[in-house]
Amino acid sequence: MNSDFYSDSIVLLEGAIEDITSKLNIIKKYKEQKEGRCPIEYVTSRVKSEESMKEKLKRKGFEVTLENALTKIYDAAGVRIICAYIDDVYEVAKMLKSYSDLEVVEEKDYIKNPKPNGYRSYHIIFRLSLDLAGEIKPVFVEIQIRTIAMDFWSNLDHQMKYKKDIKNPEFIAAELKRCADEIATTDLNMMTIRNMINNT
Amino acid sequence: MNSDFYSDSIVLLEGAIEDITSKLNIIKKYKEQKEGRCPIEYVTSRVKSEESMKEKLKRKGFEVTLENALTKIYDAAGVRIICAYIDDVYEVAKMLKSYSDLEVVEEKDYIKNPKPNGYRSYHIIFRLSLDLAGEIKPVFVEIQIRTIAMDFWSNLDHQMKYKKDIKNPEFIAAELKRCADEIATTDLNMMTIRNMINNT
Amino acid sequence: MNSDFYSDSIVLLEGAIEDITSKLNIIKKYKEQKEGRCPIEYVTSRVKSEESMKEKLKRKGFEVTLENALTKIYDAAGVRIICAYIDDVYEVAKMLKSYSDLEVVEEKDYIKNPKPNGYRSYHIIFRLSLDLAGEIKPVFVEIQIRTIAMDFWSNLDHQMKYKKDIKNPEFIAAELKRCADEIATTDLNMMTIRNMINNT
Amino acid sequence: MNSDFYSDSIVLLEGAIEDITSKLNIIKKYKEQKEGRCPIEYVTSRVKSEESMKEKLKRKGFEVTLENALTKIYDAAGVRIICAYIDDVYEVAKMLKSYSDLEVVEEKDYIKNPKPNGYRSYHIIFRLSLDLAGEIKPVFVEIQIRTIAMDFWSNLDHQMKYKKDIKNPEFIAAELKRCADEIATTDLNMMTIRNMINNT
Repeated sequence: MNSDFYSDSIVLLEGAIEDITSKLNIIKKYKEQKEGRCPIEYVTSRVKSEESMKEKLKRKGFEVTLENALTKIYDAAGVRIICAYIDDVYEVAKMLKSYSDLEVVEEKDYIKNPKPNGYRSYHIIFRLSLDLAGEIKPVFVEIQIRTIAMDFWSNLDHQMKYKKDIKNPEFIAAELKRCADEIATTDLNMMTIRNMINNT
Repeated sequence: MNSDFYSDSIVLLEGAIEDITSKLNIIKKYKEQKEGRCPIEYVTSRVKSEESMKEKLKRKGFEVTLENALTKIYDAAGVRIICAYIDDVYEVAKMLKSYSDLEVVEEKDYIKNPKPNGYRSYHIIFRLSLDLAGEIKPVFVEIQIRTIAMDFWSNLDHQMKYKKDIKNPEFIAAELKRCADEIATTDLNMMTIRNMINNT
Repeated sequence: MNSDFYSDSIVLLEGAIEDITSKLNIIKKYKEQKEGRCPIEYVTSRVKSEESMKEKLKRKGFEVTLENALTKIYDAAGVRIICAYIDDVYEVAKMLKSYSDLEVVEEKDYIKNPKPNGYRSYHIIFRLSLDLAGEIKPVFVEIQIRTIAMDFWSNLDHQMKYKKDIKNPEFIAAELKRCADEIATTDLNMMTIRNMINNT
Repeated sequence: MNSDFYSDSIVLLEGAIEDITSKLNIIKKYKEQKEGRCPIEYVTSRVKSEESMKEKLKRKGFEVTLENALTKIYDAAGVRIICAYIDDVYEVAKMLKSYSDLEVVEEKDYIKNPKPNGYRSYHIIFRLSLDLAGEIKPVFVEIQIRTIAMDFWSNLDHQMKYKKDIKNPEFIAAELKRCADEIATTDLNMMTIRNMINNT
């Protein structure tokens, strides 16, 4: 086991995130100037912690090495794109697929097909060809695209997952599920109102 | 009329915003370390444009001068604080009032008393004593505190206000009002669920 | 003449600068992790002002259009890379030429061949193929690479150029020239000391 | 010994750095607008690493506690201000002493009295009264003010200190000392030329 595996991985993972964040900043300003608005509201990102990466590699039966960190884990570099409206989510997904150095590895639409607990989001795993002054390194990046409301809901859901000794977990889960559906309805209503405003 | 009035105003207004933003960054990290979380999700800000400042001064019958820009307009420097939950809004308001160089000039609770169109937010105008290497300059700053959901709603409402030739404006306004109430209910539900998660 | 020519140009010019700055950030962290140091100390950038762009187009006999701004002016987007040592300058130049989307248009070595006034710097004009979600736009960028000392000198030189009614301009110019040579000698001495430290 | 002593210290130390950096940003923009230039070129900062803080406390015979980290170490939070010219250094020192929440604890002028090895810099230790929403915490911050040239020299000097097995260390030290004096002379020459440019 290489004790430096994390600091070696992290420069590539953070490099991939910086590359994609920079692409998104550029396209946002370009679309806002050219078309008056961009479907991207804001962007956040994170690199998986050393602990989670080690734990994931071990669980999957791989050795903890730089090589495995970069080829066996697809969500070590994560980018989240928050949109105002549901149709923006699909437009952003389409935009991302147009970059010549981003190749789709896997795609999941949890908006059309929400998870049983109510989770909604659009996930794409890309293989980015990161150009390091002529040396091309492939890096996997998981991009999650969702609305502001979906994102807010998932933060609360996430909080529940990491809380121990919750009383009435089934009741809370049911309430959360109900809220997720409520939020999805509001998202649709807001999009309808926006269309009414724009189409008149 | 002084053609430089705007560039002279803007360094003080932006200075006030930088001072307050810096206070909020510091307290956010401090609370997250000490208490595990901070009631502030994120912060945005803007300085009123030259055009709006001139227009506002003229409408109020004042000459367009640096002096008047800094003493007659209370919302030339604006900071918006976005919170996850409704009770966070009140905690942030209380925190802000504790700073020794921030003095409350005006306070409006549009959450307890929403505007007729459905608008919800908490507004405070502060007089900041900005320290410029020993020279103290008073600068007014309007701080708006609201939840993520209230903020999203108000963006759509704002869009409608600036759109011309809308068909069925009364119908859209009614729909927006209905959505605002729906969102307020969801905000309460989410807070209830969070309390259930935390109190167990 | 198109009044919007500048805001349309600027999104592409700023996009090109963001793309290159991001490349430099990524490679800096990568080299620091892999090799212990990177030849780049820090990076600054600027977009030519509307006034200078118009003035330059007119002087060259071109109409003031977006098209001409992007194809006839090579230094509308400018990036400056500051290095600690003279040999770093050449290493950075080599690195830049390795990117697959950067094509050299012009190259000038004012370090080996200083300008008569004492100016030293390495200049490359690149044609960047900027990827805007699949739409490729060529944008010219001028990159200047120099040491900290060369940069400091050129700031003072620049100040003199824009100062009117200087007394004894010939004397000051001669003093500046003498300082430039002094600085160049110090740069060489510092590099020699660094080599002595590293090679022992 | 408290294992959390570092994460508890660091929020206050980083808070102090954010507060001072923000003061410097505000005053820089203010002076540039009002007087055309500011004596501050740029600002860097660092918090002492956990290891160095522990080591320093032990060396001084203190227990490793949050309390001691904040009251017995004066340079745990460090800010470096880089100026273009020597007289700027003294102007920045004067500006800093004017803030009502910064109290001078110690002051050393290594420009008038360089260290034997050639080191030049102006050091002030301040006690900052950090306002955390009404709760005032005193935090020590060491501010180093120096010219670009002094800063460049000290980076090379620092490199030598941390390099093991150097051949001819006395010779290199003598060369470094000679370079430091050369640089100090160039700094004076540049200031003289600037004065000639400005006073005409």
